[in-house]
Amino acid sequence: MIPEKQEVEAACKRVKPYVHNTTVLQSSYINKLSGAQVFFKCENFQKMGAFKMRGATNAILQLTEAQKAAGVVTHSSGNFAQALSLAAQNLGVKAYIVMPENAPQVKKEAVKGYGGIITESESTPLAREQQAEKIRKQTAATFIHPSNDKNVILGNASSAAELLESQPDLDFIFTPVGGGGLVAGTALAVKYFGKNCNTIGAEPFEVDDAYRSLHSGKIERNQTTNTIADGLKTFLGDINFPIIKDLVQEIIRVEETEIVAAMKLVWERMKIIIEPSSAVALAALLKNKELFKNKKIGIIISGGNVDLKNLPF
Amino acid sequence: MIPEKQEVEAACKRVKPYVHNTTVLQSSYINKLSGAQVFFKCENFQKMGAFKMRGATNAILQLTEAQKAAGVVTHSSGNFAQALSLAAQNLGVKAYIVMPENAPQVKKEAVKGYGGIITESESTPLAREQQAEKIRKQTAATFIHPSNDKNVILGNASSAAELLESQPDLDFIFTPVGGGGLVAGTALAVKYFGKNCNTIGAEPFEVDDAYRSLHSGKIERNQTTNTIADGLKTFLGDINFPIIKDLVQEIIRVEETEIVAAMKLVWERMKIIIEPSSAVALAALLKNKELFKNKKIGIIISGGNVDLKNLPF
Repeated sequence: MIPEKQEVEAACKRVKPYVHNTTVLQSSYINKLSGAQVFFKCENFQKMGAFKMRGATNAILQLTEAQKAAGVVTHSSGNFAQALSLAAQNLGVKAYIVMPENAPQVKKEAVKGYGGIITESESTPLAREQQAEKIRKQTAATFIHPSNDKNVILGNASSAAELLESQPDLDFIFTPVGGGGLVAGTALAVKYFGKNCNTIGAEPFEVDDAYRSLHSGKIERNQTTNTIADGLKTFLGDINFPIIKDLVQEIIRVEETEIVAAMKLVWERMKIIIEPSSAVALAALLKNKELFKNKKIGIIISGGNVDLKNLPF
Repeated sequence: MIPEKQEVEAACKRVKPYVHNTTVLQSSYINKLSGAQVFFKCENFQKMGAFKMRGATNAILQLTEAQKAAGVVTHSSGNFAQALSLAAQNLGVKAYIVMPENAPQVKKEAVKGYGGIITESESTPLAREQQAEKIRKQTAATFIHPSNDKNVILGNASSAAELLESQPDLDFIFTPVGGGGLVAGTALAVKYFGKNCNTIGAEPFEVDDAYRSLHSGKIERNQTTNTIADGLKTFLGDINFPIIKDLVQEIIRVEETEIVAAMKLVWERMKIIIEPSSAVALAALLKNKELFKNKKIGIIISGGNVDLKNLPF
């Protein structure tokens, strides 16, 4: 079930011409505060503002010419909708995006701006899946899942791979956990390119399905999703969960107030714009600083797409 | 009146161990929008969040041991108050900071956090100068002006020097113009380290004293200061004006709405937090894109200290 090293290497090489090798930033203040040496991999600076550009690009690049000609389809109201649209546009492929009818206008505009072809659906997960399936049948487009897709996971691995190339002796890499595509990709890069490095997931208590899944050994769901970290409301899948179960050392849960505090800290001290979901990983480190004292820590800043009119501080 | 090349080189070398060689970022979107190739030198990532750390550090490093023992004094309610406090703290020197009694509490706290010793004064320029002079007499501390000081200007030159080291063939470097310390330092770096490079200042129409000074040949003042770019309300001085007159090619003026639009653009597209004052330089480029088409442009992002509770968008 675990992809081989050469698959990860090939994906990193494949996406390289299409994505930014994003900047790695440090903050003396956060180093002092945490007692660790922290390296922030800035996927908020990635094309379309999130790591999801990597997985989307790799998934499209793996299609046959006939598949490319028919296009790709996904359902997403978040960063993957934009990522698949832009990755498809860059590669001359049509992207059909199913978005809930109540998705914010600004997100619909962003998808349109990247050339995505939007179909609206009711906002239930089932309605969205059915709509995507309908488009797939009509157009013969290939369905690409935002997180539970092997090629998406392999593409996502390229962020941690780049980080380990610039900082080879990291002890841990932290990522937020939503659908599991980033943490699974990161864990693969850590396994194959790290030296005694471990992967830590970070999750809000309010949507701690991945934490519970890791501990129960089966995919758990959330009853409610009352978190500010809107990218982390989804649950794991049958493709990424085996990787996570095998390779992720621990998932640390944090409170909503800790997420907002970590987000504010990064905005104020590092002068970079990060999403609430990205702040979850730093919050997890700060909550457990005694465990990570004097360690070299990588944190994947997953994205920076926020509504500036609706900030939590 | 114009400092020699070796003075600029020596200042760059002198401050190097004490400041960050800040990241240079690019944005495909802004390149496309402007028709130019733009390199943003991120002084918002500098220690204390602004380029002023460079000049303050150089000025203190140039003091004798006896002067260092007596401390430094300045009057500022903005970034220089924090910069002098932190630079002094790093070098084991006392910093006396005169701040207007109505300065925001958050700015006073920041100065205290960096070890600055605050004295409050009435908010008129005269009262602040008199208070600083009183402290200078009482303590024998050396007065360091935020922008009209040769060593401050030389220290500030190190930002553009670093930028030209990483991008040697820039055609223009843009900076905002407030008191003139950044644009003068930048112009020195451009003169000595650039190849056919020119320095462009950028200023709000609302406080266009430097534009008028450059064109009249004498230091002009502002009658009113109704600009969002709160770092640019001050006027030029007898030490930086000769440098500016001699070495700055043009000063471009922009409207308040253009400043806010450029600031929003950088926040949304580049995911970095910049001050309104920093946005003035990009606004000046975007307002005149036909003049700078296909050119390689450096922009000094002067700082990122903003009140997140009081954003213009």
